Amino acid sequence: MTKAEAKKIESLKSLTWEDFYKTKFENKMPYFDKNGRMFDCLFAQQFTPKLLQELFDVANKIRKIAKSKEGLDYLRTLLSHKRAMLYFVQPSTRTFVSFQSACYILGMQVSEIRSTSTSSELKGETPEDTIRTFSSYADMIIMRHFEEGMAEKAAWMLNKTKRPISIVNGGSGKDQHPTQALLDLYTIHQSFLDKGGINGKTIAMVGDLKRGRTVRSLTYLLKHYKGVKIIYVSPDYLKVGDDIKAFLKKHKMPFKETADLEKALKEADAIYMTRIQDEYDVSGESKDIDYSKFHLTKKHLKLMKKTAIIMHPLPRRKEIDIEVDNDPRAKYWRQERNGMWVRTALIAYLMGIDDKILNI
Amino acid sequence: MTKAEAKKIESLKSLTWEDFYKTKFENKMPYFDKNGRMFDCLFAQQFTPKLLQELFDVANKIRKIAKSKEGLDYLRTLLSHKRAMLYFVQPSTRTFVSFQSACYILGMQVSEIRSTSTSSELKGETPEDTIRTFSSYADMIIMRHFEEGMAEKAAWMLNKTKRPISIVNGGSGKDQHPTQALLDLYTIHQSFLDKGGINGKTIAMVGDLKRGRTVRSLTYLLKHYKGVKIIYVSPDYLKVGDDIKAFLKKHKMPFKETADLEKALKEADAIYMTRIQDEYDVSGESKDIDYSKFHLTKKHLKLMKKTAIIMHPLPRRKEIDIEVDNDPRAKYWRQERNGMWVRTALIAYLMGIDDKILNI
Amino acid sequence: MTKAEAKKIESLKSLTWEDFYKTKFENKMPYFDKNGRMFDCLFAQQFTPKLLQELFDVANKIRKIAKSKEGLDYLRTLLSHKRAMLYFVQPSTRTFVSFQSACYILGMQVSEIRSTSTSSELKGETPEDTIRTFSSYADMIIMRHFEEGMAEKAAWMLNKTKRPISIVNGGSGKDQHPTQALLDLYTIHQSFLDKGGINGKTIAMVGDLKRGRTVRSLTYLLKHYKGVKIIYVSPDYLKVGDDIKAFLKKHKMPFKETADLEKALKEADAIYMTRIQDEYDVSGESKDIDYSKFHLTKKHLKLMKKTAIIMHPLPRRKEIDIEVDNDPRAKYWRQERNGMWVRTALIAYLMGIDDKILNI
Repeated sequence: MTKAEAKKIESLKSLTWEDFYKTKFENKMPYFDKNGRMFDCLFAQQFTPKLLQELFDVANKIRKIAKSKEGLDYLRTLLSHKRAMLYFVQPSTRTFVSFQSACYILGMQVSEIRSTSTSSELKGETPEDTIRTFSSYADMIIMRHFEEGMAEKAAWMLNKTKRPISIVNGGSGKDQHPTQALLDLYTIHQSFLDKGGINGKTIAMVGDLKRGRTVRSLTYLLKHYKGVKIIYVSPDYLKVGDDIKAFLKKHKMPFKETADLEKALKEADAIYMTRIQDEYDVSGESKDIDYSKFHLTKKHLKLMKKTAIIMHPLPRRKEIDIEVDNDPRAKYWRQERNGMWVRTALIAYLMGIDDKILNI
Repeated sequence: MTKAEAKKIESLKSLTWEDFYKTKFENKMPYFDKNGRMFDCLFAQQFTPKLLQELFDVANKIRKIAKSKEGLDYLRTLLSHKRAMLYFVQPSTRTFVSFQSACYILGMQVSEIRSTSTSSELKGETPEDTIRTFSSYADMIIMRHFEEGMAEKAAWMLNKTKRPISIVNGGSGKDQHPTQALLDLYTIHQSFLDKGGINGKTIAMVGDLKRGRTVRSLTYLLKHYKGVKIIYVSPDYLKVGDDIKAFLKKHKMPFKETADLEKALKEADAIYMTRIQDEYDVSGESKDIDYSKFHLTKKHLKLMKKTAIIMHPLPRRKEIDIEVDNDPRAKYWRQERNGMWVRTALIAYLMGIDDKILNI
Repeated sequence: MTKAEAKKIESLKSLTWEDFYKTKFENKMPYFDKNGRMFDCLFAQQFTPKLLQELFDVANKIRKIAKSKEGLDYLRTLLSHKRAMLYFVQPSTRTFVSFQSACYILGMQVSEIRSTSTSSELKGETPEDTIRTFSSYADMIIMRHFEEGMAEKAAWMLNKTKRPISIVNGGSGKDQHPTQALLDLYTIHQSFLDKGGINGKTIAMVGDLKRGRTVRSLTYLLKHYKGVKIIYVSPDYLKVGDDIKAFLKKHKMPFKETADLEKALKEADAIYMTRIQDEYDVSGESKDIDYSKFHLTKKHLKLMKKTAIIMHPLPRRKEIDIEVDNDPRAKYWRQERNGMWVRTALIAYLMGIDDKILNI
């Protein structure tokens, strides 16, 4: 670290939480690094093209090693001395289980808190104290919280203590879900490995673009690739937010908005379906939306390119008919398993043992 | 697999779930096998006499090995590269913990989902998608579900995918609980090891014979033994079902029905007590039954054979007075621990590492 | 064991639970020992000065070993063949997670039951049967229960069976929380290591002294040290109980009671802050107490000795302002982590592997 950088971090440390929170991403990023590498994984914006490639390489190597018992037994030795806390107070199945499996693959032992009703928050403890407590026992906290910014606040607070540990954001409110974006991108990358990768592809994102945090995070990351076109397909009420459109314009990323799914399907290389996020409804407004025009069914398959891929962050309701599952272009189950591999890679990176995977 | 067998399985694969579900056990069994051995453990009917003996042998060997730290450390290497998902959305203590312990004994890492309120079913996901998701992360799913047939449906669905994993039924509705039957039988078998085994024994089953799934499953399995007599002891309202009686007649298994506990106790080699299953009451009808005549108390002990054994699947309420616990014939606590051993044997078998236990 | 001791234990075994429960601590202690060492950890009174020193030594050695991956990997081999049951049916975060971490550090595998709603108690099982069930699967039960005396009852019952396992009390009702007292004492001991240890120190206990079980347990243990003075600081309604005062008088331990926090702060070497335990309110009476005079804030820091330490069993509400956290005398976060280490030492001792830690 240069003196200028050290000074910058010191000045970040002196900010109140409110001021820190308002600080621009690019200015506060170094605060979440350590020894020149990412220490807390909080925002999709932290993933540079170089880091993405590195994580994809580690994930691919892990998958290769994991093909044999011998390999898996080796992986389990790498973090056998570490303990992770999974603090998930917002309902979640796949993010939870895939992170837990990722920890297991590297030999970490895992504690889990999945409800505030079994925890000390009942006794009036602040979330900050709860997180500091976990940091007394664990070597990493992977957290999902209903409150926006909570993962960042946790990392902000722990980095001021004498024994900071890595925070991994497993989803915070409507806000960020960086590892979802990571696994989405990894899935596109792997699917087009011998077709030029992500560069030059047309990505159609379909559904609740207004409130789906995965759409936001994925859009951010696509700026790292050349010639990517995005088609946003949604009912009028659920159109992509102005902040995202401003981002796209700033980075000169071509995009269009439409309500015509069929037309988009013909053009797209990757179709990214999403669920209507009615848990964020203010007054049940989702019920009035005719969402059926944004459902992918068997009849759509013939419109799609032969090389196209269908993705979904899951869980799904009716956005993708189960008959679509048997089409070879349906990649959402693989995408789910990719999540486990790329999260394993991320943990390996954060704990500084990625070289023990790459150099074997 | 012969060509005829392969063809049969292909034709099973083409059935809808409704048609598959209605197919007779004996016809659909091969669908749940792989490489000539059971792959999914769903029904008591899958346990052939040969397989039962094999599982008992493996269980006995595991218990022997587990007597030393060295032995237990060896066992833990066998599945150290595998992960199990315990998906238990119906309340359970002993089935859950004994399966978890079984996984631990073989070194498997375990994820648990014990409530639908922390899972994606909240977000409208179907149970099938939830199970498919687990199969993305785990190498085996052990499940207890309130819905009849759900374990079978899970296995039916996964066996059509490219990455099927074993499903173990830890209880589905009023329906089946095959590993309970397995541990019951193992307990009788071990208790009469030097007295001719299960053959020729008289088994009294007492209590709620109408709704207890363990009674059904145990009856099925007793057909594999010679000269077994069954006495069903219950109040009139809770008599054993007609389907079971038809089964007994078909297989020429002698049985009688009575409401006289004391008389049955004099004849029985094994007394299998059960709890009134009022969670399956339609309108609180259990309250009106005088169940006290079907409670085993200290005064009954003198009526019983000296070599008899007392069993109970547990949990108990008042069916067995706690004073009975001190009698050497009370085997229900041992039966419980047997459950752990025989489930360990079953997992070892399903994962194909039973030979590494037997041949040590 | 001498014949007289054996006879004494036999006569304890013949008591009913009610009579056993009423028996004086000193008379029933041997019942919870095995081979001359503590087997069940139930009451703070079981910690003799010799045992305390031994546990502190083991904890210190564990911390030293745990500094390297190699060391942690060694520790994990010690109990790799054992399984612990964490039965916590009263809300808890830190006790739960620190015990779980302690198990992990020694390589134990852990099962957890954290709610009676997922367990067989729903089906009418008694807590005794539930605990006996756990003993079928596990090698140690660590339990927190809302009912006073439940941990003792569990140990009482299991010690009469053929396969008793250790019970560790992680908190029972308003009653006892022995490992909290242990970690409190360990923290004071370590903080004054080169200043004469605990002997001769003045300890101020502040807050809800009436209902806080930690205050009770810590007072009991302080009798083992010479020249300790206690200042109890509380509002009138929450004064320390008469039983504790009787204890202090009996053991000639000097103490005083006051409502003047500032005065106490000037004298104290250790300030032990506590939370108002309103979960034990009978009719919301805590709301009427002006508790603010018993809150430690930044302005108090200048009153305190430079060598003083600030402790809190946590969770806190407003008893300690977060601005106090940055003062070097604030030891409550370290105290929390100490809990993990000293619980690891306790488990090692109970499982008889402390020598494998001390003699390395």
